[in-house]
This record gives sequence, structure tokens and C-alpha cells, in this order.
Amino acid sequence: MDFKVRAALKEDCKEISRMILELAVYENMPDQVKISHKELEQDGFCQNPFFECLVAEVSEEHKSKEGFTIVGYALYFYTYSTWKGRSVYLEDLYVMPEFRGRGIGKGLLSKVAEVGKNKQCVRLQLSVLDWNTPTRDFYAAKGAQDLTASEGWHFIRFDGPNLDNLANEAPKD
Amino acid sequence: MDFKVRAALKEDCKEISRMILELAVYENMPDQVKISHKELEQDGFCQNPFFECLVAEVSEEHKSKEGFTIVGYALYFYTYSTWKGRSVYLEDLYVMPEFRGRGIGKGLLSKVAEVGKNKQCVRLQLSVLDWNTPTRDFYAAKGAQDLTASEGWHFIRFDGPNLDNLANEAPKD
Repeated sequence: MDFKVRAALKEDCKEISRMILELAVYENMPDQVKISHKELEQDGFCQNPFFECLVAEVSEEHKSKEGFTIVGYALYFYTYSTWKGRSVYLEDLYVMPEFRGRGIGKGLLSKVAEVGKNKQCVRLQLSVLDWNTPTRDFYAAKGAQDLTASEGWHFIRFDGPNLDNLANEAPKD
Repeated sequence: MDFKVRAALKEDCKEISRMILELAVYENMPDQVKISHKELEQDGFCQNPFFECLVAEVSEEHKSKEGFTIVGYALYFYTYSTWKGRSVYLEDLYVMPEFRGRGIGKGLLSKVAEVGKNKQCVRLQLSVLDWNTPTRDFYAAKGAQDLTASEGWHFIRFDGPNLDNLANEAPKD
């Protein structure tokens, strides 16, 4: 089956939002999704966008059971290493279940790598859960390093009241 | 001792570059630093900057042994969660050894939180090495969660030839 990978347009945000929710349902955490297509439109298609997105599209004749032609997405943004410079970070990579095993995920991943290289990024990074062995193997097979396993990097987060407390203690100008 | 935390200017990049190298020397990895103040100027002060930076400054009378008045920095950028929206990521937080223990690191961290909140960020995230117990304790004491310990997140990286290979396999338009 042919598919096309292209940069997402603002008009695609409803479809992207639909797939973000599908992914969260699959992970049994649909309640965690707090943003809708409106935030995606606002945050991804403004002056200094917070993210960029690619979508995978199939032709009308190959549409999904429910009638969808946008069947996968890769959402990414640019980050920075003070040692190496520009990097790209892949936040989400998703392909609808009925379209898996046809190279669409690989196509999205490679395209993010290409977009990053075109912006002089020297790294493509992402996070994956411990128990998600198929996904970890998928990346390892393509040569990715697991920096948590090899160097002991831990991922740390402030949010909610802890983040508020920090911000409230900022030195005044 | 009084200090001021302010947004870095393009003219501060030489000082930031000096401190990036100091931090790498402290970590015994000065050879890993491949970028100079020129890349910082270009990547941080362009139309869509790849990062933002704060510096901590002391008065002339409190300058360092070597005569520096810029004595710390926090380099950060914006990231995005498809569940929660805008986030801020702290890549580097550094205070020169002779200025530690005076709240400068805390001041920089809080200011990043404040800047993030002003941009409607709902998370402040960062990475820390396993063996770096003082730093992990510092963040934990302020309420941060360790997502590698609690949820099993691993940090994955493609770079060098692996990244090139991926990019070369991108589907053509």
C-alpha cells in the first residue's frame, strides 16, 4: 500500500488530536489527555511554534474502516545540547493498528531524521518505557543508544503545585 | 551577596561558552564540547531560537578571582506534551564553584520556572545522572518526580552514522 508522509497543516489538527486520543486509549490513559485540536492549532501553527508534526496519509481507496485517510503522525520539536548543538526530539510516533507492518512508522521516523538533518541537528532523541520491549528493540535495531541503560540518565519532572512553588520563588527584577 | 538573574544577551555568549566548558572540565569531558560562542550566538539569537538562556550576575566588587561578573547560567528550551501541552526543559544549570551555596542555582531554577509559567508551560523537565545524588536530592527536595525511577522512562538517542542512515531512508515526496 502506498502512503505519503507530509508536514501537517493546521487543518490536520482534528485528525492528530483523534490519534493522540487513540494512542492514550491504547495505553489505558485517555483521562490524561488535557489538550484538544484547539491547543494544537494554537501551539503548533503560531509565530514560534512549540512543535512540528508530520502525518502519514493513504489514498481514499485505502481509507480506514471508519473512513480516515490520515493514519499516522510523528510530533517533534527542536532541542539543544550545549556540547553538540541542535537536536530534534520525537515526542510521539503513532500508526493506526490496521495500518501497521507496512513501513509507515519507519517512514515517519526517517522523515523526522531527514527534517532534523536539514536543520543541522546532530541528534534525534526520544523516550521509551522500560516494559515496552518491542519499541526499544525497534530503535536499538536501528542503532539508537539507550542512555538510561548505558550512562544512567534519569528523567525528572516538576509540575502542578511544585512548579508553582518554584516559579513563585523566582528572584524579582 | 547580591546577584541578579537576567535574560542572556547575544553579547553574553562568550561568557556562557566559557562556563559550558568549565562544567565539562568539572565532568572530565572537555573534549565533548563541539560548539563555541559562535554557534550559541547563531542558534540562540535567531528568528526561531533553539534555546533561551538566563545568566546570574554579581556586581564588579564581588567579581570572581579571574575577574568574571557572570557567574552562572541556565539554558533551557520549550518542549511539548501531546497530553498536557507546553513544557519547558532545563538543559544546563551551572554556578561557578566559588559562588555556590548562596542561592544562585535556586534563583536560576526558579526563574526558569517563572518564565515557563508565563508562557503557559505546565511542566519543567530535566535529566540528571544516576550517580549525581546531591543534584537528584536537590530536585527531589523541591518536589520533582523521577520518572525513570517511578515509571521506567528510558532516554534514547540516534546520532552520527545511525542518524545519517535513518535520514537517508526517508520516503521521498
